[in-house]
Formats: sequence, structure tokens, C-alpha cells
Amino acid sequence: MSDARTRFLSVFPRISEEMTAVLAKEGMPKEAIEWYRRNLDYNTPGGKLNRGMSVVDTVQILQGKSQLDDKEYERAAILGWCVELLQAYFLVADDMMDQSITRRGQPCWYRVDGVGNIAINDAFMLEAAIYHLLKVHFRDEPYYGYLIELFHDTTFQTEMGQLIDLITAPEDHVDLSKFSLRKHHLIVVYKTAFYSFYLPVALAMRMVGIKDEALYKQALDILLILGEYFQVQDDYLDCYGAPEVIGKIGTDILDNKCSWNINIAVENATPEQRKVLDENYGRKDAASEAKVKEVFKASNIDVEGRFKKYEAESYKNLMKLIETVDESKGLKREVFVSFLNKVYKRTK
Amino acid sequence: MSDARTRFLSVFPRISEEMTAVLAKEGMPKEAIEWYRRNLDYNTPGGKLNRGMSVVDTVQILQGKSQLDDKEYERAAILGWCVELLQAYFLVADDMMDQSITRRGQPCWYRVDGVGNIAINDAFMLEAAIYHLLKVHFRDEPYYGYLIELFHDTTFQTEMGQLIDLITAPEDHVDLSKFSLRKHHLIVVYKTAFYSFYLPVALAMRMVGIKDEALYKQALDILLILGEYFQVQDDYLDCYGAPEVIGKIGTDILDNKCSWNINIAVENATPEQRKVLDENYGRKDAASEAKVKEVFKASNIDVEGRFKKYEAESYKNLMKLIETVDESKGLKREVFVSFLNKVYKRTK
Repeated sequence: MSDARTRFLSVFPRISEEMTAVLAKEGMPKEAIEWYRRNLDYNTPGGKLNRGMSVVDTVQILQGKSQLDDKEYERAAILGWCVELLQAYFLVADDMMDQSITRRGQPCWYRVDGVGNIAINDAFMLEAAIYHLLKVHFRDEPYYGYLIELFHDTTFQTEMGQLIDLITAPEDHVDLSKFSLRKHHLIVVYKTAFYSFYLPVALAMRMVGIKDEALYKQALDILLILGEYFQVQDDYLDCYGAPEVIGKIGTDILDNKCSWNINIAVENATPEQRKVLDENYGRKDAASEAKVKEVFKASNIDVEGRFKKYEAESYKNLMKLIETVDESKGLKREVFVSFLNKVYKRTK
Repeated sequence: MSDARTRFLSVFPRISEEMTAVLAKEGMPKEAIEWYRRNLDYNTPGGKLNRGMSVVDTVQILQGKSQLDDKEYERAAILGWCVELLQAYFLVADDMMDQSITRRGQPCWYRVDGVGNIAINDAFMLEAAIYHLLKVHFRDEPYYGYLIELFHDTTFQTEMGQLIDLITAPEDHVDLSKFSLRKHHLIVVYKTAFYSFYLPVALAMRMVGIKDEALYKQALDILLILGEYFQVQDDYLDCYGAPEVIGKIGTDILDNKCSWNINIAVENATPEQRKVLDENYGRKDAASEAKVKEVFKASNIDVEGRFKKYEAESYKNLMKLIETVDESKGLKREVFVSFLNKVYKRTK
């Protein structure tokens, strides 16, 4: 495990302790306190933690320091954990809505013995932790209101993205006429890019005292493109990544996902190819999946080739946008370059 | 329908319009906008609206006006609708967790055709509406931060109450040793009293500019007792109210609810009576229910008699507390008296 991850993880037990202490102070019964602890500990750490750690990384880059001192580190890490709590809140709920089985190598929370639908209230309580932590640790800061607004706005945006995804691609009802690259764009930007890419950077910018709204707009423009690129890659790797490298066997075709691949195919298919897609996409068998993959490979569709082209163009666009960042105002290109380098041409 | 209710309801279409316009502005697909509209309209109005209207009533009393002008009325009503949105958020989720069938005379939202588990994200989006409305309509007010904090704190408290309730009284596992009047007190105060009684009044106090924190503490003390009294009544009426008056047939005994009645019985039962309760509470048949009701009637338990006594004492206590309110500082006794008169000795 990397040092950065170890240090970030070391802050979490204090957060879990602080939040359960709230219930204790309110006189809640022991079972409720222990339940909340288990909810926090089961659902919050355990992922890649990229989103949370990127708050810390960005603060460090913006302050031009090679290492944050303990106090600064802790404050940045608390904001990072708030992003992870937001994600935990979404994932606990998404897994129920998608009827998923496992998450991060363990059963989804709602499938844990004795939890079931209580997981809905548990998701709510993960969200509540965000605002409690902000209040305790940032209430006296001049930028406190902006932090709250960022979380509110991002939460709403992510929920909009989840709504479009849910009504566009229900697992049990295939209708490719609902799909389009435009909808795919909306889903990935709203459901993923705002909270995974813009939120961590904007929180860090607020924390270091950046006030110029134009810089937030510039960061947003870059990070939404980066976030979309990241998600397109994710969709691509689901079908074309090596299972032993990405750590899972992709199931987007079987699950009727509104992925980049199928939208590229739908957009470029001949009527015959479209018929094959209509009849085989989202079906739960390997033979149907293979037929869809065959269409993906057809020379007029060529998902792989189009992805390489999209990847190269996105990189060029992003570098061009990043170059326009005027570093004299407090924002730094390295924030985005370091993100891009983590993401570009990844294989997992 | 009362004039007050008609006026309050007349504000809702503008809120629904305003919120769906947010999605339209973000470029969401038409189906998503229509889905959100249906979610808002199905789940927000339709209840008694007491909580929302009490924001308006309290503002009116505190300002000493017999009628608010249109502009003031609208602002108070928006805060009132935020309380109703908060309740809608909880109820959509609670109904899923309790596997309820109907709510306010119509199928629970998650049981509506095509909705299902999407209702979880829909509940989230009802909550998101609160913070969006506050931002649009109150962002420039000096008390804006307090409004947000009130909603955050109350949300967390309600979730804590819901958690204790869920783990103390799961519908499918009867264990009366988990029950106690202390737990009942915590459940009703946290799950109901904060959001139904304190929140509307505190919002109104902020809106009219009351700053003295001691007055909020005083209002809290009175309103939590009032809220508890209200809920005890509710529990009592579930068993002893006339179905044709309360509009439903009580099912608390069948559903293993941690109600005031059963806690009074458990606290006062002889070992023989306790055995009857253990063997019959929370069972889904009329014969078991009748046996429980018989224990409630036993002279050493006498739920009815104890309730009358509790009711008279609460009333006396509340009136005494209300008398201590110093009206020179901006708070008015009438706020609480009018609440109490709505609640005291109600039969439905």
C-alpha cells in the first residue's frame, strides 16, 4: 500500500470515532451507536480512495508544498473523507437500486445479514456525517458556506445523473431507442464527473483561499472533460480490458448498461446490425453477448479504433485547455496534469 | 378545505415548476424532468400539511399580524414547503423500509408501477429540493446559514430516531426486552418531535430575525415535550381511537410497534401478564391482538387510565413552561398555545 494511502486511511478512525460520539452524546442506545459505527466502517473506506486523496494532493500542489504539516493534512483529509462519505452514500443506495451482489470484494451493505432495507436510512446517515464534519471543522472559515454549497450542488447533480441512468437503462427492459451519445454524455458527466473530478478540486481550491469564480469555471470545464474521458475508458475497459488486469469480468452488455460502446455501435450501425443489437443487447447469455461484440468489431463500427481516436483527441484537447490556465492567479496546471497522468492510457 | 390550507397549497405548483425548471436548465431529457415532476407532485402535498402551515402561522403570530402580505406569505410558505419536502423524503424511504402498502390514501410511491427501488433516488431528490429552494430564496439573508443548519441537524436527528426504531422494533422479530419507556421517549423525540414541532417554529423564528439563542432553547424545550405528547396520543389513538374518526384501523399491536401502550404494559406487567404479551404481541392475528388488549385493560396496567393521567399532567407542565416565556424578547406564548390547542384532547 502506498504511503499516501496509509496516511489518508489513518485519519478515518478519528472520523468514525467523532461521528459515533455524536450519537453517544445524544443519549442513543448502545446498539444504535454500534450500528452506526459498523455502517461507517463497512461502507466508507475500502475503495480506491482516489477521490478523497485527490483533495489532499490538490491542496498540496496549490500550496506549492512537498508535504503538508499534520494540522493542514488533517483538515484536507477531512474534506477528502467527506467526498468518500458522499460516494458511500451513493453506492449503498445504487447497489440497492441495481440489486448488486458485491462491492469492493465484500457483500453489498444491504445484503449483510440483518441489514436489508435499513440500508436506506444508513445511506442517509452517511450523508449526514458530511455536514456534521463540515460544521465541526470548518464552521469558522470564511469559505464554509461554499463548502456546503459544493456538496449540495454536487449531490443534486449526481442524483440527476442517477435518475437518467435508471430510467434510460433499466436492467430488465432493453430499449436501445432510448440510448444516445448525448444521453451517455449527460449520464457520465452528472452521475460521475461532478462528484469524482470537480468536487475534490473545488474543495481544495476553497480551502487554499481561491476566490476568483472564473478559476472555478475553468477547473470545471477541464475536469468535466477529464471525468467524461475517465468514464468512457471505464466503459471501454469493461469490454476490452484484460480481466486479470481490471480485476473483474465486464458485464455491461449483459446488464443493458448505457455504455459508450453500445452508443457508438447504435450510432453507426446499419439496419441489419441494429437488429442484431436490439435482439441481443442486455440478454443474460454468453451467445447474445458474443453477437453484440461481433457487431462492435465490424469495420463500420470498430469500437476499439474509435476509442483510440477519442482517447488521443481528448488528451490533445485537455492539454490545450490546461495550457490556458493562468498560473498567476493561484490555480496551477499541475493539478490537472497530475490527474490526467493518473488517468491517461490506464489499463485498469 | 380551510382557507389557510388552500392558500398554502396554492404555492406548491410554483415550487414544483421551479424545481423541474432546474433540470430543464441543466439539459436533462424530457423523461427525467417529467419523472421529477411526478415525484414532487405525488409525494409532497396530499398530507395534512400541519407542519408546513405551522411555519406560516408562527411567522404571522411572531410578527403580530392578522394576515401576511403576498411577498411575506410566499417566503414563509416556501420554508413551510421545505419542511413538507423533508417529510416527503423521510416518508418515501420509511414506506420502503416498513414495506407499507398505502400512504395518504394512495399506493406508496415505491409501489407505483415502474417506480420500485428508483424511489430511493427519488427520496434523495426530494431532499435536494430543500437546499436548492433555500439557496434561491434565502441566500442573501443574514440567517441563511441558520436555516441550512436547522435542516441538517433536524435531518440527522430524525435519522437517528428512525435507526433506533428500526433496530428496536423490526416487524418480523418480536423481542419485548428491547422495549422500554426510555427507548420510546428517544424514538418519538428524535423521529418525530424535532422535525414536526421544533423545526417549523425555529425556521419561523429565524425568518422574523430572532437571534437570542436562549429563546431557541426555550422553544425547543417546550416543543419537544409537545411533540412527545402528540406522539403518545397518536399511539393511544391507534388502539383506543374510533376507526371512523381517526380514519384507519390501528395495527400497532399486529406490527410489533414500540408504542407507548406496549411500553406502559411491559413496565407494569406481572410475570404472567408479561408472558401473555411476549406470546401475543406483534403476531399477525386478531386473537393475539385481543389478548394483548386484554392485558392493556388489566387494573394494574390500565393503559387508558394512565394515558388520561399522562395527558392531564403534560398539559399542566406545558402550560407552566409556556408561562415562563418572556414576551419582551420577540417570542410569543401564543405560538405554543396555538400548537397546544390544536393537539390537546384531539380525537383524530
